[in-house]
Amino acid sequence: VQTKLPRVGTTIFTVMSQLALEHDAVNLGQGFPDFDVPDFLVAAFERAMRGGLNQYAPMTGVAPLRQAIAAKSKALYGRDVDPDTEITVTSGASEAIFDAVLALVRPGEEVVVLDPAYDSYEPAIELAGARAVHVPLDPETFAVDWQRVRDAIGPKTRMLMVNSPHNPSGAMLAAADLDTLADILRDTGVVLLSDEVYEHIVFDGAAHQSVLRHPELAARAVVVSSFGKTYHCTGWKVGYAVARAALSTELRKVHQYNSFCTSTPAQFAFAEAIAEHPEHHEQLGAFYQAKRDAFRAQLARTRFRPLPVPGGYFQLCDYSAISDLPDAEFCRWLTIEHGVTGIPLSPFYADPPRGQRLIRFCFAKAPATLERAVERLERL
Amino acid sequence: VQTKLPRVGTTIFTVMSQLALEHDAVNLGQGFPDFDVPDFLVAAFERAMRGGLNQYAPMTGVAPLRQAIAAKSKALYGRDVDPDTEITVTSGASEAIFDAVLALVRPGEEVVVLDPAYDSYEPAIELAGARAVHVPLDPETFAVDWQRVRDAIGPKTRMLMVNSPHNPSGAMLAAADLDTLADILRDTGVVLLSDEVYEHIVFDGAAHQSVLRHPELAARAVVVSSFGKTYHCTGWKVGYAVARAALSTELRKVHQYNSFCTSTPAQFAFAEAIAEHPEHHEQLGAFYQAKRDAFRAQLARTRFRPLPVPGGYFQLCDYSAISDLPDAEFCRWLTIEHGVTGIPLSPFYADPPRGQRLIRFCFAKAPATLERAVERLERL
Ligand SMILES: CSCCC(=O)C(=O)O
Ligand SMILES: CSCCC(=O)C(=O)O
Repeated sequence: VQTKLPRVGTTIFTVMSQLALEHDAVNLGQGFPDFDVPDFLVAAFERAMRGGLNQYAPMTGVAPLRQAIAAKSKALYGRDVDPDTEITVTSGASEAIFDAVLALVRPGEEVVVLDPAYDSYEPAIELAGARAVHVPLDPETFAVDWQRVRDAIGPKTRMLMVNSPHNPSGAMLAAADLDTLADILRDTGVVLLSDEVYEHIVFDGAAHQSVLRHPELAARAVVVSSFGKTYHCTGWKVGYAVARAALSTELRKVHQYNSFCTSTPAQFAFAEAIAEHPEHHEQLGAFYQAKRDAFRAQLARTRFRPLPVPGGYFQLCDYSAISDLPDAEFCRWLTIEHGVTGIPLSPFYADPPRGQRLIRFCFAKAPATLERAVERLERL
Repeated sequence: VQTKLPRVGTTIFTVMSQLALEHDAVNLGQGFPDFDVPDFLVAAFERAMRGGLNQYAPMTGVAPLRQAIAAKSKALYGRDVDPDTEITVTSGASEAIFDAVLALVRPGEEVVVLDPAYDSYEPAIELAGARAVHVPLDPETFAVDWQRVRDAIGPKTRMLMVNSPHNPSGAMLAAADLDTLADILRDTGVVLLSDEVYEHIVFDGAAHQSVLRHPELAARAVVVSSFGKTYHCTGWKVGYAVARAALSTELRKVHQYNSFCTSTPAQFAFAEAIAEHPEHHEQLGAFYQAKRDAFRAQLARTRFRPLPVPGGYFQLCDYSAISDLPDAEFCRWLTIEHGVTGIPLSPFYADPPRGQRLIRFCFAKAPATLERAVERLERL
């Protein structure tokens, strides 16, 4: 078989989870919680299945879920979104991103990506026949250098991808960033793809600056989110895209021939959860802030230097006091020799910063899991 | 928004289901059962959720499900398939087809499609930057004219898509067809994509001729199937692709950045169902044959002329004794004026046969549903 995608290997999350399994390591790599889905959600799921809601959902998603997403968008971000024409439920945020890129980006065009970036962005761009133009974030703070973004946008630019809270760094866009971004995109035809899957996991009193808050940006955006991170069920794979009708129409052209629709009972369960248990997503920031703080306190016993975590459920650590190995090798070594798995940062970059010695740990774990990991990390 | 896919509208299944809803019609359009998922499957799903199997599945699918699929392939089709390197679980057969096309077909290449064909094939080909070359099936029997297939294959051909049992006609490939096909593809680099989602719904003692039965074809094939049709749960959206390792590696490159993985509890539930309830898929042919026969007996009271149905759960009917309207208009009219929804055949064709007057009814319905539909059809 002649390969069409010679540069694509197996995603780092799969590679590291497999390695963790082989070596019985504590897996703080791939981002998923090791604690339970809320009982109200499982119960709602069961009611949906027992109630016969097991056949194809509408291609756009079931109406109660689209309505619940619209109500949340209004309540949290002050934006009126039309559930019928502006919301599309997908098989996870991943599919939404993939659909958006394939539906909107043409061969020969360019997509601006801020590095480090989630590893699915570039392959989608490549499959669309387009080219990713990489703009590095600040290697210490992971702030956006907007002048570099401005310079990266040219006549071929079709899309700009942002992600806040940011994976892997947790960095968040501020309201002023959105204003600057609006200024940069004004008078261009650039579509903004905003990956906001960690929207509810924000700390220290900060507010998530959804692109939906910003009328000018919202008009040109595809905003992607998901329920896996919010409801501790990354394996249920339900996400969605919010975009004005003209953009949603295009995205749906791909979605309907890709996965077509996603789990019907899961959709009904999430609709009920959002509407009847708003306290769950409202308290999620505090829930994870406690985990973050506990994990950072534990890490103080080690020679890993934790970076600030404004949002999300990942802790970046500088390991240069421990090892001079490049990050991919360090992460293999840490798994095999010390039984703790993290994710190296270099796969998030087209051009990894020279000498960067960072590892990403996921702290969406039960206290005992984090304690077990730190006991092993202490020995280093 | 400049559209990238100007020729793509909303899929006919969505359009007709919506119209059925608006007019309170009996919906025999989109293919889904209106009866319940087997209780053992719901129970297994609940156990998986309650047992904490709610996080990301491996990108390739959970091991017990891949093993169960391999065991079934061995038992039914005599083929040894390696669960680790040759099976990929996807978000429905739709995603598997989409992934296969995007992963294997390059811009400028050609894909041979036998018309009438499922409506997702061509948009996937178009998104890959390739061209669909359409070969019509016999308009009466829906048999393949292999000489025309042979003639359609040229130096640019990268893939040939087949579908047996066939949607919409129910026509099935025979063992001799596979031999002829092997002969045609020998010494070409053409990949065979075989859509076998109705593999267990075959009638009158015939055996499903899976491409997996044929060593030479299996070596160049991506065989796609799904659990939605087999277990009466089209809304759970779990499918899979079987292909030798080199082809599976390519398909996974796209899958991992598309939906990445699919419902973990659903996967465990299907694994259990296949292993512990083989009688379910073994008896599915008889189950649907009874429905087919009952529906055809009822249709004898109408002026619809039913065509033979060797497999699948769709009944094609010639309506030329009732109306001379083109099929799309006839289906709208039948929904709005007579409260019964079927699917027109023309959307399954690049170039619909002139004067064809066929409508597709789905008979995966409770007896009362079919009776209610036929009572309305009788009045015509
Ligand atoms: C889809 S596997 C990756 C999960 C994730 O979001 C991460 O670990 O960054
Ligand atoms: C994905 S909606 C279409 C369902 C189906 O397979 C059909 O009706 O042909």
